[in-house]
Amino acid sequence: MTGRPGPTTRVRVRRLVGPIGDDRRDDLATEEPLEIRLTSLDGTRRTVAITMRTPGHDFELAAGFLHGEGLVAPDGIAAIGYCTDEDVPPEARYNTVTVRLRGPVPDLPALDRHFVTSSACGVCGSAGLDALHDRCRPLPRGSVTLTPEILYGLPDRLREAQGVFGKTGGLHAAGLFTAEGEPVAVREDVGRHNAVDKLIGWSALTGRLPLDRHVLMVSGRTSYEIMQKALAAGIPVVCAVSAPSSLAVDLAREFGMTLVGFLRGERCNVYSGHERIREGVE
Amino acid sequence: MTGRPGPTTRVRVRRLVGPIGDDRRDDLATEEPLEIRLTSLDGTRRTVAITMRTPGHDFELAAGFLHGEGLVAPDGIAAIGYCTDEDVPPEARYNTVTVRLRGPVPDLPALDRHFVTSSACGVCGSAGLDALHDRCRPLPRGSVTLTPEILYGLPDRLREAQGVFGKTGGLHAAGLFTAEGEPVAVREDVGRHNAVDKLIGWSALTGRLPLDRHVLMVSGRTSYEIMQKALAAGIPVVCAVSAPSSLAVDLAREFGMTLVGFLRGERCNVYSGHERIREGVE
Repeated sequence: MTGRPGPTTRVRVRRLVGPIGDDRRDDLATEEPLEIRLTSLDGTRRTVAITMRTPGHDFELAAGFLHGEGLVAPDGIAAIGYCTDEDVPPEARYNTVTVRLRGPVPDLPALDRHFVTSSACGVCGSAGLDALHDRCRPLPRGSVTLTPEILYGLPDRLREAQGVFGKTGGLHAAGLFTAEGEPVAVREDVGRHNAVDKLIGWSALTGRLPLDRHVLMVSGRTSYEIMQKALAAGIPVVCAVSAPSSLAVDLAREFGMTLVGFLRGERCNVYSGHERIREGVE
Repeated sequence: MTGRPGPTTRVRVRRLVGPIGDDRRDDLATEEPLEIRLTSLDGTRRTVAITMRTPGHDFELAAGFLHGEGLVAPDGIAAIGYCTDEDVPPEARYNTVTVRLRGPVPDLPALDRHFVTSSACGVCGSAGLDALHDRCRPLPRGSVTLTPEILYGLPDRLREAQGVFGKTGGLHAAGLFTAEGEPVAVREDVGRHNAVDKLIGWSALTGRLPLDRHVLMVSGRTSYEIMQKALAAGIPVVCAVSAPSSLAVDLAREFGMTLVGFLRGERCNVYSGHERIREGVE
C-alpha cells in the first residue's frame, strides 16, 4: 500500500448460516502500525512509541499519547506532520508521525506498545508480515477440518469453562479446543493478549507445542498480535465472538490460517481458510 | 499489599437502579503489573516486558509471551520463579517473574507493554499510583454533578455518534460529553487506549484542556491506563458499558474521580466518587 490507509477495509468473507455458506463482502476496521517520533530544534530525533491503530486522527493520537504519558505538554508542540525523513519508505509515510517540539526531546526509556518485536521491520502492516516469515512458516492446509456444528458449540463451551472468573464480567477469555470441539484449557485476563499468552505458555511448559491439531477461541476481537501468537504456536484455526481487524485477516491469509469471526448462535463469518470448514455437514 | 494478589478483588459499590442507589459489594478482576525478567548462567539480567495482567498463571504468561514474540523457545527455559532479587521490594515479589535461560539473554530493544512510563516506579499497582502523584493532582470534588438520567442517556448517544465506523463492529469508541450529556467529540480505534488518546489529543490541540467539566464515556472496560489518561486530562467522571479493573477503581478513589461501570439501560454501578451523581432526581 502506497496511498493513505482508510479507517475501514473491504474484504471477501464466507458467511455461514447453519451448515450452508455463501460469499459476501464485509467492512473491517483497518489496523496498521503508527510510529510516533519526536524531533527538537537541535535535530535530535527519537521514536517514543509504535502502536497498532486504526488510521485517522493520527496527529491527535500522537498528541494525546504524549500528554497522557506525561511526556510532552500541548504547548510544548510546535508542529505535527506525517514523516518525510529519508529513512521512511513511501508505503510507511502515513504510518509515521513526527512531533516537532519547542524544547528538547525528553530522555526516557524506549516505549513500545503492542507491535513489539516487529517494530524493527518497517512500519507498515505488510512489512510486518514479511518479517514474520523469518521465524514462522505457513501452516499446512488439511491437517484439521471442522464441521459448522462444532464451531457453533465453541462459545458456550468457552463460557462454561470460564468458571469463577466469569462473575466479574471484566475478563477476556481464551480457550484451546480439539478439532472435535473438546475443551483442553482456558485462561482469563484483563488483557486479551495475556489470556492467549497464558494459554500458549501452558502448552509450551507442558510440552504440547506445536498446537497443530487445535482450535483457539477468544471471547473478544482478533488483532494482528493475537494472530501472531497463534501462528507462532502453530494453531491452524482461530475463532472469535467479535470482529477481526484488517491486519488479522491479512496475516491469516498470508500464513494459511483459518480465521472465524462473529461466531454467535448458528452463524459466523469465515475470513480466511474456509477449506478447513466442512460445509453442508449437519 | 505484601501477600500474593488474587484473581478477583472485592470492592464496595453504589448500585443505581433508576434514580435510587444502594450499597453493595462487587467482585472485580484484579489488575496488577507483571515484570518479566530474563537471567542467563553468566549472571546477565534483563527486563523484557512489563504488562498489566490479572494475577494467576504468571509463569505461563511469561513463557507464552517469550514464545509468541519469538524471543525464547520453550526448551531454552531452565526454570521460572517469582523474583527474589534484592532490588525487588516484598510488595512487588509476586509481580516480578524471573525466567532462567539455558543460553544467553537475547539482545533486543527494550519491550514495554501497557504500563509504559510508570514502569520505572516499582512494579506494584500502589507504587504506580504513588508515582502518579508526581505529575497529577487529585481532582476537585463538586466541580461537576450529573443526574442518573443524564448518565443513562450516554451509551445511546455514544452509539449514535459512532457513525460510519460502527458498521464494522470491530472498533472501540470513546466519547467526550458535557455534564448535561451533550456530545462534544467521539473517536474510534481498534485499540481502546488509542480512542482515548485521539479524544484527548483533539482536546489538547484545540486548547480545551483541562477537561474539568466533562464526562468521558468508553464502549468497553476501564483499566488503569484509561483512568491515567483521563486523570492527566483533568476529566472528573469516567463511564463505561462494561466492568472496571481493580486498579482502575483504586486510581479513581485515590484521585477523587467518579468511575461508573456496567452502564446499561437505567442501571449502573458507581465505584468511586458517587457524590457527583445527584441521586433521587428524576
